[in-house]
Amino acid sequence: MSTIGILVRADLGNAADTVRELATWLHRRGVRACLDERMAVMVDGLPSTCTASTPREIADMSDALVVLGGDGTLLAASHLLERPIPVLGVNFGHLGFLTEITLPELYPALEGVLDGTYRYEERRMLRAVVHSPRQEDSIGDVLNDIVVTKAALSRIIELDVTVDGVFVSAFRADGLIVSSPTGSTAYNLAAGGPILHPALPAVVLTPICPHMLTNRPLVVSDDAKIEVHLRAGREGEVHITFDGQRGFALRRDDVVEVTRSPRTIRLVRAPNREFYEVLRTKLKWGDTRK
Amino acid sequence: MSTIGILVRADLGNAADTVRELATWLHRRGVRACLDERMAVMVDGLPSTCTASTPREIADMSDALVVLGGDGTLLAASHLLERPIPVLGVNFGHLGFLTEITLPELYPALEGVLDGTYRYEERRMLRAVVHSPRQEDSIGDVLNDIVVTKAALSRIIELDVTVDGVFVSAFRADGLIVSSPTGSTAYNLAAGGPILHPALPAVVLTPICPHMLTNRPLVVSDDAKIEVHLRAGREGEVHITFDGQRGFALRRDDVVEVTRSPRTIRLVRAPNREFYEVLRTKLKWGDTRK
Amino acid sequence: MSTIGILVRADLGNAADTVRELATWLHRRGVRACLDERMAVMVDGLPSTCTASTPREIADMSDALVVLGGDGTLLAASHLLERPIPVLGVNFGHLGFLTEITLPELYPALEGVLDGTYRYEERRMLRAVVHSPRQEDSIGDVLNDIVVTKAALSRIIELDVTVDGVFVSAFRADGLIVSSPTGSTAYNLAAGGPILHPALPAVVLTPICPHMLTNRPLVVSDDAKIEVHLRAGREGEVHITFDGQRGFALRRDDVVEVTRSPRTIRLVRAPNREFYEVLRTKLKWGDTRK
Amino acid sequence: MSTIGILVRADLGNAADTVRELATWLHRRGVRACLDERMAVMVDGLPSTCTASTPREIADMSDALVVLGGDGTLLAASHLLERPIPVLGVNFGHLGFLTEITLPELYPALEGVLDGTYRYEERRMLRAVVHSPRQEDSIGDVLNDIVVTKAALSRIIELDVTVDGVFVSAFRADGLIVSSPTGSTAYNLAAGGPILHPALPAVVLTPICPHMLTNRPLVVSDDAKIEVHLRAGREGEVHITFDGQRGFALRRDDVVEVTRSPRTIRLVRAPNREFYEVLRTKLKWGDTRK
Repeated sequence: MSTIGILVRADLGNAADTVRELATWLHRRGVRACLDERMAVMVDGLPSTCTASTPREIADMSDALVVLGGDGTLLAASHLLERPIPVLGVNFGHLGFLTEITLPELYPALEGVLDGTYRYEERRMLRAVVHSPRQEDSIGDVLNDIVVTKAALSRIIELDVTVDGVFVSAFRADGLIVSSPTGSTAYNLAAGGPILHPALPAVVLTPICPHMLTNRPLVVSDDAKIEVHLRAGREGEVHITFDGQRGFALRRDDVVEVTRSPRTIRLVRAPNREFYEVLRTKLKWGDTRK
Repeated sequence: MSTIGILVRADLGNAADTVRELATWLHRRGVRACLDERMAVMVDGLPSTCTASTPREIADMSDALVVLGGDGTLLAASHLLERPIPVLGVNFGHLGFLTEITLPELYPALEGVLDGTYRYEERRMLRAVVHSPRQEDSIGDVLNDIVVTKAALSRIIELDVTVDGVFVSAFRADGLIVSSPTGSTAYNLAAGGPILHPALPAVVLTPICPHMLTNRPLVVSDDAKIEVHLRAGREGEVHITFDGQRGFALRRDDVVEVTRSPRTIRLVRAPNREFYEVLRTKLKWGDTRK
Repeated sequence: MSTIGILVRADLGNAADTVRELATWLHRRGVRACLDERMAVMVDGLPSTCTASTPREIADMSDALVVLGGDGTLLAASHLLERPIPVLGVNFGHLGFLTEITLPELYPALEGVLDGTYRYEERRMLRAVVHSPRQEDSIGDVLNDIVVTKAALSRIIELDVTVDGVFVSAFRADGLIVSSPTGSTAYNLAAGGPILHPALPAVVLTPICPHMLTNRPLVVSDDAKIEVHLRAGREGEVHITFDGQRGFALRRDDVVEVTRSPRTIRLVRAPNREFYEVLRTKLKWGDTRK
Repeated sequence: MSTIGILVRADLGNAADTVRELATWLHRRGVRACLDERMAVMVDGLPSTCTASTPREIADMSDALVVLGGDGTLLAASHLLERPIPVLGVNFGHLGFLTEITLPELYPALEGVLDGTYRYEERRMLRAVVHSPRQEDSIGDVLNDIVVTKAALSRIIELDVTVDGVFVSAFRADGLIVSSPTGSTAYNLAAGGPILHPALPAVVLTPICPHMLTNRPLVVSDDAKIEVHLRAGREGEVHITFDGQRGFALRRDDVVEVTRSPRTIRLVRAPNREFYEVLRTKLKWGDTRK
């Protein structure tokens, strides 16, 4: 273990002290910190071993990654990682589903990473391939979800969904979410979908405001090949988004194919914190075991 | 009674025979038909008294209005009507909530309109006034709903809602529907809202995919003044739509004020058909009274 | 104003000090406290003017009523009140929808009641009449809801619902809630129903776990006469409950008729607290106006 | 293959002709039909090889089983089967999720069973063990669901749920459904749960009308050990049911432990009918692939 990357949410101005402290802590243990170059210029007193690079370079060269920010920052980081190195999601203020480690917990967790005793979950990603009759395929890997959705001023959209080549249903809706278990607590939950345990080898298809009231979330194996066929929609009226972070317009007759990605994210757990505890806290279920 | 306007859904190519028959039927009873000019050119053999005009002119000059098409056509017609004349919504194929009259029922219903014995419901409309710090107020009357919603590629939006000046809640959601009872069976239903009897003097506020899972549809008096304050959202990220038919982008700090409109729509009922029968049919509740 | 009744939740052992203080406070202002006789024996040092009676006698003789406890205690009190006297719902610990007054707010609120300047809401009640072919009618007034529900070990039940004599739908479900606006934030909310502003002249019908997924909550005028016809169900399998507090078994062919009750409850508001503030707090919507 | 059992829904009076025809068809192929003894006495002209027994004996001795009736009849049959023999669920009138074979499809499907070429799905069952401090353990295997629920006249119940020994949440609700994928389209769907593909190795926990609005359906691996701890509830107020068919009262401090059962049901598929087709038909999604 020689290099630990540090990625920080863009607007986290007050993170300078934390970053300096973290880089110094690593330096004392003979570990090099590699810092987002946009952050590096804002922090004084970094140790001499600390280097600065672009996020993509950091993702490529690090042996582990510390993400300071919220779930959005970690999602962005997940898109850069080609190898399953340990990722520590550290929240500033609000507990996140992906950033469950608090600042006080960061150093014990890092000790675990350095000595190889850390607890982690291998989170599966999904891969979307967009087949378009008029252009080359687009490919995207997501940790949370792939969403096909209508534009604000457009009417309902129409999608046909197949699973492993078998027709499931036509959906007339505002859109459709194809979510991993990790993403099930994100947009999927707001759209009425169920919570999937992160380790479940499954995918959930949740229509957004379906016209047909009996259309309900459907959970299938993540071995399945899901196809979403865009049936209607004028130019610019239907979009696909990847983890809610980037996206583009789809066109009539485009097909979105979703399968399990070969990539995974190795998410380091906070010591003594279980998935269900995060769930109870985030959803305000209360913690009172009677 | 001397003029009955006829509006037809744009793509209803097979309506020519029906329109000719209808105009002839009216002619024989000494009533002049006034036809959408785009339709008029597609129909042969119209009676000599039949005239052609723009939809707006038709709305202004008619003593009653026949709308052939679906609910969308009737919504468009409702936006043109300044006076509460009888409106007959006639469906081609699928029963609509607003177009509940079938072709065979049209003539008996028209007889009722001509001799003044028709059954009708006075449907209330809502008025939205958009106050913007940077431009003049925009005003729109709707029969169904006013919807504030995010763009396809944007993240969640943030709205503050007040009722009669009292703060209700901040909503972080895909959007918010402010629906009349008439609109409660349209988009509101797809977003999880309740059904309101058409005569109820109420408005329902239904958040679309709210981030906060405890945000629920809220029904208030239609005497209330509802204000939706747009708190976040970059340029072009938030839109308002009127009856799902037209709309425009909102900007940060815009305020949408919704009250009951002074306008109403006098919707002629099909003979012997109740609201609940339409509901059962449209929602496939089944009609089996045990 | 000469007598104020005090009703206390049965298990509120720690209420003795509060009750003594309250009775003494009233005594000093020349007002007689009339206390639940079960509570009176548990409190020392009551002022000489303080009397003890049964809850029903207290409801009959008091000029205003203080209820110490939770919403359940206030619901029970509401069933005893034949006249719309001011009712102060005081919570011990948890804010309630009906018991929104905290202990520190109690005395300012009481001052308002004594000098006639108090703010209040007149909450409408519903009346259920159960018509049974085999026995006399039963009548019950409720502040929250009338619920028809299946027994734990029985299968689904079948109900026909009419509104003002017009057939609405057959429901195959675990049960049906007929709720007032006041009750809309109680069981109705757990069953997926909407929130109705307390002053709305409406009733909401919410099926519990309906077999038909398109059956949705329906809001109608409280001028309407709602009838629930019990179609199936073996002996002992279907029950009716009033405000979740008392109930009995229904039998096949029983009809439950629900209308607005002539009775109302005059609920005293806490100073400076609005309905929506209670809503935000109880539903954890957060109070952050951005 | 020498014996095929035939079980018929109790009230299926008009099944005599079908049963005779079926027994004769089997006789001609050298296969013995074994018929429910209550049915046997109602059918004339049965072939000489046909025998009559109790349902349990039939389940024990048959090489395959034909179930004529609805899903309830098949659920009852599943409780009797100790071995995974082919089961043909035949519906009389209404398509069922478990009885998807129509009468015309029965004979081709049976041909497939006799010559070993049939398509089938191995449906997993769940096992519930009720641990009670005051009596012996009770065990039950279910194909659909285990439901813990309150009595009609009782208030909300309180349950603590753990998965693999880790505390998940306290639930205050009308009850809790623990459903297999097969059961996900039954009661679970009415309570707001998602649809799980029948082959998914998962279990869904769905609270019924939870008091806490953020409590949502939770899908976990069926390798997990789920425990439901009954925390409150007076005598006779909480019940457990198995596939909605039988059940008994639980007592305070009882623990319901749910795991995957070692038993499975081998459900024979109709020729050319997929799960999603049944889903579309039952849920009225429509079959229109655009």
